[in-house]
Amino acid sequence: MSKTFTVGLDYGTEAVRAVLANVANGAIVAQATKKYRHGVIDEVLPTGGPKLPPDYALQHPLDWLTSASSTVKAALKMGKVRADQVVGIGVDFTSCTMLPTRADGTPLCLIRQFEKVPLAWPKLWKHHGAKAETDRINQIARQRSEPWLARFGGTIGLEWFFPKILEALNHAPKIYDAAEVWLEAGDWLVWQLTSGPFPDCDASKLARSTCQAGYKAMWTGDAGYPSPDFFAALHPKLRDVVKEKMPGVMVSPGARAGKLTPAAAKLLGLAAGTPISASVIDAHAGVPGAGVAGESTLVMVMGTSSCHMLNSSVEKLIPGVAGVVDGGILPGYFGYETGQSSVGDAFAWLVETFKLSHQTLTREAESLPPGADGVLAIDWLNGCRTPLMDGRLSGAFLGLTLGTTPAQMYRALLEATAMGVRWIVEDLRAGGVPVKRFVASGGLPAKSPLLMQIYADVLGEPIALAESDQSVALGAAILGALAAGQATTGHASAIKAINAMARQRGDLVYKPDRKRQKQYDVLYQIYRAVTAGNGVVTDVMRRLRTLG
Amino acid sequence: MSKTFTVGLDYGTEAVRAVLANVANGAIVAQATKKYRHGVIDEVLPTGGPKLPPDYALQHPLDWLTSASSTVKAALKMGKVRADQVVGIGVDFTSCTMLPTRADGTPLCLIRQFEKVPLAWPKLWKHHGAKAETDRINQIARQRSEPWLARFGGTIGLEWFFPKILEALNHAPKIYDAAEVWLEAGDWLVWQLTSGPFPDCDASKLARSTCQAGYKAMWTGDAGYPSPDFFAALHPKLRDVVKEKMPGVMVSPGARAGKLTPAAAKLLGLAAGTPISASVIDAHAGVPGAGVAGESTLVMVMGTSSCHMLNSSVEKLIPGVAGVVDGGILPGYFGYETGQSSVGDAFAWLVETFKLSHQTLTREAESLPPGADGVLAIDWLNGCRTPLMDGRLSGAFLGLTLGTTPAQMYRALLEATAMGVRWIVEDLRAGGVPVKRFVASGGLPAKSPLLMQIYADVLGEPIALAESDQSVALGAAILGALAAGQATTGHASAIKAINAMARQRGDLVYKPDRKRQKQYDVLYQIYRAVTAGNGVVTDVMRRLRTLG
Repeated sequence: MSKTFTVGLDYGTEAVRAVLANVANGAIVAQATKKYRHGVIDEVLPTGGPKLPPDYALQHPLDWLTSASSTVKAALKMGKVRADQVVGIGVDFTSCTMLPTRADGTPLCLIRQFEKVPLAWPKLWKHHGAKAETDRINQIARQRSEPWLARFGGTIGLEWFFPKILEALNHAPKIYDAAEVWLEAGDWLVWQLTSGPFPDCDASKLARSTCQAGYKAMWTGDAGYPSPDFFAALHPKLRDVVKEKMPGVMVSPGARAGKLTPAAAKLLGLAAGTPISASVIDAHAGVPGAGVAGESTLVMVMGTSSCHMLNSSVEKLIPGVAGVVDGGILPGYFGYETGQSSVGDAFAWLVETFKLSHQTLTREAESLPPGADGVLAIDWLNGCRTPLMDGRLSGAFLGLTLGTTPAQMYRALLEATAMGVRWIVEDLRAGGVPVKRFVASGGLPAKSPLLMQIYADVLGEPIALAESDQSVALGAAILGALAAGQATTGHASAIKAINAMARQRGDLVYKPDRKRQKQYDVLYQIYRAVTAGNGVVTDVMRRLRTLG
Repeated sequence: MSKTFTVGLDYGTEAVRAVLANVANGAIVAQATKKYRHGVIDEVLPTGGPKLPPDYALQHPLDWLTSASSTVKAALKMGKVRADQVVGIGVDFTSCTMLPTRADGTPLCLIRQFEKVPLAWPKLWKHHGAKAETDRINQIARQRSEPWLARFGGTIGLEWFFPKILEALNHAPKIYDAAEVWLEAGDWLVWQLTSGPFPDCDASKLARSTCQAGYKAMWTGDAGYPSPDFFAALHPKLRDVVKEKMPGVMVSPGARAGKLTPAAAKLLGLAAGTPISASVIDAHAGVPGAGVAGESTLVMVMGTSSCHMLNSSVEKLIPGVAGVVDGGILPGYFGYETGQSSVGDAFAWLVETFKLSHQTLTREAESLPPGADGVLAIDWLNGCRTPLMDGRLSGAFLGLTLGTTPAQMYRALLEATAMGVRWIVEDLRAGGVPVKRFVASGGLPAKSPLLMQIYADVLGEPIALAESDQSVALGAAILGALAAGQATTGHASAIKAINAMARQRGDLVYKPDRKRQKQYDVLYQIYRAVTAGNGVVTDVMRRLRTLG
């Protein structure tokens, strides 16, 4: 067995996970997780001040460094792996989580004069402060018939990169002015490792991930970012945002962004010079991490939110698909990204709101029939990412009676997320993109057999499970192996590396029950009737968000 | 001060209350309540057997007698009132709560051969087992253009008398066959007091209330019940149901149904020969009990469910009004009944489901703005009584986010019930029936100042409160005084008796806040958009009830 390993650093919403994966077979020999000390900052800044607006979700950049340091060191110790046995590092990160910095890599929020300005802090992917800005970007893009718009299903998302920049320009112009670099958090982290840590970073060495740029910043390899004319139409000061405030070079995930600096090596307890891959969006790392190297397999990375990724040799621009990026997930394929903004988050909301446990609710929900005795949920508690791409949408429960129980509402919410996937799959197929296999990964599938059976029944398709319960982190480690290169790892191609290091479970496939599938066919028609994009319910939800 | 009193027996959903009211001024000198031993029977029959279907809600007839005995005796003792000081008895009862009996007054459920048949038991008003029967009655009535249909807003309710009979005929035909008398529970109770108790009742002495018959059994003074041809069109065996199984004479509330028999007098601890009024629907007793003797005042009797009653000299047949009955509430006026199937019940559901207290939720909800931060409820957790008259409708919450709290949902539910009243008031006014004043009574208004302020703000109208916190029971006692007659009470007319014995509080009127009223105008338009009678949401709710 190989004695070389790569590190996968998996930055989630609440915590970072470091895994040490054997380069030969992907076996994870050690892993460690650490919650961010400040978690999701959505009440008050760490520096004090007033209560944050309800749509805000910020993070503390030092949490990312300190948690990486402690987890990597802990994993090395647990796995009894020496620093010189680690041949590569991969980093996946939530996206679009982004921040403004100085040219030396210093986050603006760590500079005294800006530390009390909320919009100086990193905005987490689910920060929803840019609703008006998103509307404006979509409006201007449609007016100007921007050629890149169709690539994103015709709609730019509330959580993306440029809405978040425009929000700062509108609501905290001095932050916009002071920012010398706007960048994705994943890119910032890789920059710290390859050129820093701050304040020693060199902006010319900043490697920007083509994955984040392609899915969240309207970038394509052919055309780059949108034109200065488009940005000027949004706001005169935004005209040269790319040239002035987005330095760096574009690097694909799996390609080498650089090597560990001595200071960063000390921080992580690794060897200086260790190769590092360009970062990747967390969910997208779940595709190689689930052992999916080919096309037409939908990889459902299910956690706090869900991302559903698909590689295809077919390029179709489909309304309601968040993005199709050439090579965005793996080289050689068009990578389709779709997703749901709240899945595990929504279940957790219900559990916390009712002060019950997942275990109790699951046990009771298991004994309920499809349709949860006539309770119907809409799962948009954090907006609808796809296919409607509207952060102003919200969740709902219908069919409530005086006898309705929390378990019925819980089952209805599980079913609602399954119907959300079905809608996405139907849109992909109707748009001409084949979807032939289903692989689930992420934290939720292992936790909830009930949820997976519901997905199989609602989709009417068998669902395989990624073998690793850390497929996203493993995917990052695989990218670390790619960055290390064939000479070091022995893997002759990306496909060979993926097939060597990751696979699906052979012992468990969730198969649809044909009777329940038919019952869900009926329920799904009802779900579609209330969730229609221009229906009364979606209209009402949008109006509700304008109150108060 | 007068030394004569009347008894008001107020039969609610869970308990009976007996009040002793001073005939001169209505002062309640003593009251006692007792919960029914068997409560609402919705799980298993007292005689055992399988779990009841989810729509079932039954009661035990002996509970009505034993609880009356203990409460009247307790009230007499507490009030130090002698039996010979009690000059009259009034009875109000939930409606349509009904049962099948022998001609001697014996409930079929107390006969051994029927005791295990659920449909032999009294069906509580909120028993919802007759959905298909209600659909059929409405369908046939529309096909035949039955002249009485418009009087009930064009729709017969799921909770009414003949749907419940037809349910027995369809699902327990031997019960239908064995029944010699079908009657309202309030009429049964008065029958026990004036001619029984069973098995000594005489069917020819059965006094049927024109109030229950008018609002719940399609009876009018001019035309009587629907025709045998109509009943035959529903089911051949139903043709002569009125002639064969509905003996008795029609008597108005406040008119004398009879006098206490010696055996019944012993049961209650009162004097044989005491006059008894014909029974009245509980909510309708709340109109005189709130001191409302005139027209154009909406009396909102708010409790488990809400009834909104209005007397008017104008007769208009308005879609969505549950019933308009000449003299149905007070002599000389057209009595309009509207209502909401779940109000306090819905609040209690939320409190129990979230395992929180009304106090905690109220305190938090008070600090929220109108619109509950964008959460919208639909209050039909027990169907929509008016204006949509559809028991298949259900409750809902929209606008939910990951930050939604139980207090927001609680406030949204309070607001939803207020918007339900506003819809009713707008329909009455649009139909040409003036609504000029608002008086709230029942259990809820005293308990929740927040609720009353929301009602004032949503309606944009001041709301007065009935002085008595037992206005329904007091209303029954007032009817007892009317049955006693002028020679005994000194009150020269019904209006004079009401004005002497009941009134509104002088110290507290809830006034609308004009700013909040405008905010609610916006919210109300949203509420109407989702609750529209033939909208996608109501359609979806109906389809949800057909699942499983």
